[in-house]
Amino acid sequence: MSFYKIILRYKGTQYQGWQKQPHTSQTIQGQLEKALKKISKSDEIHTIGSGRTDSGVHALGQVVRVQIPLELEPLSLLKALNSHLPNDIECIHSENSSELFNPVFDAKDKTYKYLFSLNGRRNALVDDSMTCLDRPMDIEKMREACELFIGEHDFADFYTVGTDISSTVRVIYDCKLHLEKQQGFLGEVYPEHYIFEVKGSGFLKQMVRLMVGTLWNIGLGKVELADLKMALNSPSGAKLAAVAPSNGLYLCEVNY
Amino acid sequence: MSFYKIILRYKGTQYQGWQKQPHTSQTIQGQLEKALKKISKSDEIHTIGSGRTDSGVHALGQVVRVQIPLELEPLSLLKALNSHLPNDIECIHSENSSELFNPVFDAKDKTYKYLFSLNGRRNALVDDSMTCLDRPMDIEKMREACELFIGEHDFADFYTVGTDISSTVRVIYDCKLHLEKQQGFLGEVYPEHYIFEVKGSGFLKQMVRLMVGTLWNIGLGKVELADLKMALNSPSGAKLAAVAPSNGLYLCEVNY
Repeated sequence: MSFYKIILRYKGTQYQGWQKQPHTSQTIQGQLEKALKKISKSDEIHTIGSGRTDSGVHALGQVVRVQIPLELEPLSLLKALNSHLPNDIECIHSENSSELFNPVFDAKDKTYKYLFSLNGRRNALVDDSMTCLDRPMDIEKMREACELFIGEHDFADFYTVGTDISSTVRVIYDCKLHLEKQQGFLGEVYPEHYIFEVKGSGFLKQMVRLMVGTLWNIGLGKVELADLKMALNSPSGAKLAAVAPSNGLYLCEVNY
Repeated sequence: MSFYKIILRYKGTQYQGWQKQPHTSQTIQGQLEKALKKISKSDEIHTIGSGRTDSGVHALGQVVRVQIPLELEPLSLLKALNSHLPNDIECIHSENSSELFNPVFDAKDKTYKYLFSLNGRRNALVDDSMTCLDRPMDIEKMREACELFIGEHDFADFYTVGTDISSTVRVIYDCKLHLEKQQGFLGEVYPEHYIFEVKGSGFLKQMVRLMVGTLWNIGLGKVELADLKMALNSPSGAKLAAVAPSNGLYLCEVNY
């Protein structure tokens, strides 16, 4: 058996998330394993991703441990993958790895970004890559809220129950909101937008999207900073917001 | 009957082009007419688009004359359309129009843009919105070629036979190539890329994509500027290049 650490970039729009499912191959892991089976001409392949991105979520740097019964130069594996993967999934890095490497538990930190605009229009051209909202928000208050997320907290009010987890405590190292405006053609296509960026020790199911939804409610005056403090200090089991849509979310980087 | 001039913005990736087809509603016109039938509660609707964008081609400003047996404020029509159209098709403008307005024959000029990068990698995140190539090209020579396209020419060597047309002569008012590089998050996502921009009296079937393919062959040294001059001055019926892929093409503006 050979082990590799690879990095995938993908557009999640057409897929039902990272995790493979028995009745569809329309998942990122499903497509990756299909390609690996063809490359290795074997069914004895195994993959572990750093995290299970949801349906519609994108990645710039999803880290995956790949196990195949075939020895290849890492660059040959990368090229073989890119000739077998669909155009919206791409291998951007490949190296040899140890059997002991675990992309989930060995991660030191992960960074997610979420793109949204507030200038009030749907935008057909970028609907699959950012969320367009139509109400003005108090950005300064949202920035104060970002500060409150930083540190170690019990995020029990910021996750959706899924697989078993031993703890809902996570550490947020950095959390911020900034405005971006493009020039040129992409400026015509992409409206002026905000990027919410969060770096943490790890993230619970739908945690980033619940943080974004909460920020929006704070920006709209529906939730107060005091409510957020309370939820982070003594979780009640009640959510402060709905889950933000998946189209604006990107898993950007996982460090080891 | 009421007549409207509307402008549509759409991402063409999921559609088999503008023109409605009998056996699928996966065309832009098919989706528009489906929405109009629901809005007007009638089958007596009629639409004419300014041009038939191909499968996978996008639009920032496709102009359409809409005829429905229902009188609405133009803004109400816009809102009704946007609540019935899929997320990747959007009405961005609506006004009353005359029955005599013909979006095809009344057009004074049209502008298309084509996005491509030359930095050698597939890019899963933008594969639906630009073409990524992996060979260096002589950009200065391609800019000289752009100049040659300007003016009135018989574009018989730059079109794909389709519906009947009375002439293959068209006038190109402007044609240029420029480099764009983004900052920030979109800079991480979109590689540095070139934009080919062409404004003309009208365009034949696949004409822009054949112009782009020819430019690439000139940039690669496979076609000489003299060959392009010849093709524009005395068409031979032979093409100088294959049709460039549809994913990088945008119908940007139609003026009346």
